[in-house]
Amino acid sequence: MTPAALHTPLVQILDCEWPILCAGMGGVARHRLAAAVSNAGGFGCLGMVREPPERVRAEIEAYRRLSDRAFAVNLIPAATERGLLDAQVEVCLALSVPVIALFWDVDADLVRRLKAQGVRVIHQVGSAADAEAALRAGADVLIAQGVEAGGHVRGQISTFALLPEIVALSPVPVVASGGIASGEALVAALALGAQGISCGSVFLATHEANAHAHHKQRLVESGAADTLLTEKFFRNWPMPAPVRVLRNAVTEGRHDALYAQRATPVIGAQDGAPVHLFSTDSPLEDATGDIDDMAIYAGQSCGQIHDLCSAGDRLRQLVAQAEACLDRLEARATAPRPVEAPAATPAPVASAGQAALVAVLQELLAAERAGARVAASSLSQTRDAAARRLLEQVRHGEADSCRRLTACLAHLGIEPTREIGAFHDKAMAIANLDERLAFVDRGQRWVIRRIEAQLPLCDDAFVKAELDEILKTHVTNSAAMQRS
Amino acid sequence: MTPAALHTPLVQILDCEWPILCAGMGGVARHRLAAAVSNAGGFGCLGMVREPPERVRAEIEAYRRLSDRAFAVNLIPAATERGLLDAQVEVCLALSVPVIALFWDVDADLVRRLKAQGVRVIHQVGSAADAEAALRAGADVLIAQGVEAGGHVRGQISTFALLPEIVALSPVPVVASGGIASGEALVAALALGAQGISCGSVFLATHEANAHAHHKQRLVESGAADTLLTEKFFRNWPMPAPVRVLRNAVTEGRHDALYAQRATPVIGAQDGAPVHLFSTDSPLEDATGDIDDMAIYAGQSCGQIHDLCSAGDRLRQLVAQAEACLDRLEARATAPRPVEAPAATPAPVASAGQAALVAVLQELLAAERAGARVAASSLSQTRDAAARRLLEQVRHGEADSCRRLTACLAHLGIEPTREIGAFHDKAMAIANLDERLAFVDRGQRWVIRRIEAQLPLCDDAFVKAELDEILKTHVTNSAAMQRS
Repeated sequence: MTPAALHTPLVQILDCEWPILCAGMGGVARHRLAAAVSNAGGFGCLGMVREPPERVRAEIEAYRRLSDRAFAVNLIPAATERGLLDAQVEVCLALSVPVIALFWDVDADLVRRLKAQGVRVIHQVGSAADAEAALRAGADVLIAQGVEAGGHVRGQISTFALLPEIVALSPVPVVASGGIASGEALVAALALGAQGISCGSVFLATHEANAHAHHKQRLVESGAADTLLTEKFFRNWPMPAPVRVLRNAVTEGRHDALYAQRATPVIGAQDGAPVHLFSTDSPLEDATGDIDDMAIYAGQSCGQIHDLCSAGDRLRQLVAQAEACLDRLEARATAPRPVEAPAATPAPVASAGQAALVAVLQELLAAERAGARVAASSLSQTRDAAARRLLEQVRHGEADSCRRLTACLAHLGIEPTREIGAFHDKAMAIANLDERLAFVDRGQRWVIRRIEAQLPLCDDAFVKAELDEILKTHVTNSAAMQRS
Repeated sequence: MTPAALHTPLVQILDCEWPILCAGMGGVARHRLAAAVSNAGGFGCLGMVREPPERVRAEIEAYRRLSDRAFAVNLIPAATERGLLDAQVEVCLALSVPVIALFWDVDADLVRRLKAQGVRVIHQVGSAADAEAALRAGADVLIAQGVEAGGHVRGQISTFALLPEIVALSPVPVVASGGIASGEALVAALALGAQGISCGSVFLATHEANAHAHHKQRLVESGAADTLLTEKFFRNWPMPAPVRVLRNAVTEGRHDALYAQRATPVIGAQDGAPVHLFSTDSPLEDATGDIDDMAIYAGQSCGQIHDLCSAGDRLRQLVAQAEACLDRLEARATAPRPVEAPAATPAPVASAGQAALVAVLQELLAAERAGARVAASSLSQTRDAAARRLLEQVRHGEADSCRRLTACLAHLGIEPTREIGAFHDKAMAIANLDERLAFVDRGQRWVIRRIEAQLPLCDDAFVKAELDEILKTHVTNSAAMQRS
């Protein structure tokens, strides 16, 4: 099937293949990440908030050595001293940047100036009032940012509620942002009237993102409940502005004495410059110092991000998930309505090979669900930080595998089992946590063997790719368990 | 098309036709509302938090006089004194209530007790941790409640982020709640893996809801940005627990002196009992006193609710929107991908009658968009409360009409125009606000005439129903403008 639902008018406006934008994360979204996203068919964005004009120029030139695709430069007028902003804009105009993405309050004069120079303007907004202002100024595309987004958050409305309000009033395409880290969420956004999505966290957790390894790791290990909105990070942005981050010493108040004095001692260095406590700087790849005390930005979508991969693989993952999701909605939409008694539903027609594959997928699904439940139950039984980190990692891996297996079954037109593998009761019968973890690891290795045996027999590309991801997750997690 | 995508396994579990649940809003969701929802094919729920057993019995019996469909009774163990809760449960068991819906923290003993009696249990949760607890206790269905929901809000995670996390770990069907007031949102929830939706606000704004007329009116007039989470309403629930309400004197701090003393004077009466300041009681149909100082519950989805109608019409509206949305995703999914140059796309094949209809729809869309923009721009020019209320009403009406017209065009396979009618510039050229409002009203009446002329010529049932709604909105709003 040609997934034409994904080819919204937005892709023509932005001159990309898929309606998936990478957010202009300051410091994190530099030329490697932006080019990797664009080259895979998405739309890359250089996050240049407060960067000196020389770096803006260098990043644009480096991007162009890696990609000949269109891209955007992200600027934040409200957080940038006026002279610096003008210099940044001059560089962008001199280098014929095709698209500028703006955020925070609406600088109507700047929007008009860019439009007059033939630059397309994307404006990210968090409320209907800001959307109206951006439209009056002439924005070509709006990004509706829900409160669940990571980093700086402009409004207080969730994506589910904000998106329809903005779609209803906007004559230009609207892109959804906040809480989105899967192809299923892309389809959900399309259903709500968006023409695409803009993602931060899911691209931060890639090899090309210029974020510190510790930041990537924490994001992968966390769930939505681990994020919070705070105004504790205030240095560098002129006003206190809420950001969504993962909990750390700053958000837990362990530096509150310094906070009360607005003291911002140096706690590290990156990019050849010091990093101060309470700074909005994201810890970058080369950062040194107290990394975890910096702003560990993450959106609530982090609970759906379970691994690091390349940005190109990430984009292909999102597209494949969206295609499978559209297939699923469409398959159900055109299938005859199930007759009253479920037992009378005819069994799906399948070849012998497919029947065997389905049996393995169902068996794995029940096992993964059992594993996820064991990890979750065990979490509530220990306060030990190392054990909890490991259990969180396992839980995420198992939950992600459940999602992938469910998608595979949907792709094959099969209703996923609702069973929980016997593994759960066996594991929970082991009272000693270390012994239970060893048992869980044996389970992980059983899954690895099962998939390795199945892969050569599987000729469905979608299922193969998903099994491959599940395999990788289990190899990683089993290794982590054996190290511990 | 049979919209089989909407017939998820959940409808068999709950024994209803459409996977649309009405939330068990305390006091508001009584037998008339629950029966109207169930009789239209949705799933009704009696909101019985803290109600005496006699009322629980009377409501169940009254429901059964109106409907023979399955339904739920909603109880909140954490907010109900133990003896009262036991008595409520006894009544439900004695009357063979088929489903009990629970909320707030998980009372595992109660869940097990209900299950042992053959009652199906729905548990609403706001986090993965609560979901795990509800599953361990044996819940048959989970409702994942996002932070954008109205009334009592258990978690801090938005629907977009919470739903996939809970779907990934749950072996039982998951229902989405929070921010949902349209069929498009139902499809979005299905894309994210839900099997249905649970809605509060959209059913509060119906004739059958037992809410005070002022409450319904404020909800219809408000947007997502007008709601907030607060712990100011604390009386009756044993713990301070955040609720989402519309701003009023309490949330704006005008009773803070009393709040500091935890004084709760009587401010009204309803149901034959006094209503106290800071009470969690929702103002009911028969309420008297300072209605607007009570808890005016609303979810962030209120920005998508623009009119009052019957609960049955509301349910049919949601289903029709969901069907049109699935059509749109499917049509685009199977249509050939647009060729590179948009100009080369062949014009859609249409009969002469359809072409005329499309032209009218496009003309109306541009006009409605202009009207919405005029209302929004005018709002930023006046502080006068009455004028603002009127402008908000017009803005919502125009925005809702845009949405409906866009859905009609999508239904016909036509790309909606992005134009803004000339009406906008003409209206904004009128400096005097009263004169501009008179001009806007002339625009409303033009729309009414245009639709009245078109309706007899239109033989597409979906388009006809939508035009009918737009007509009603304009008649209502024009009357309001002429009264002012």
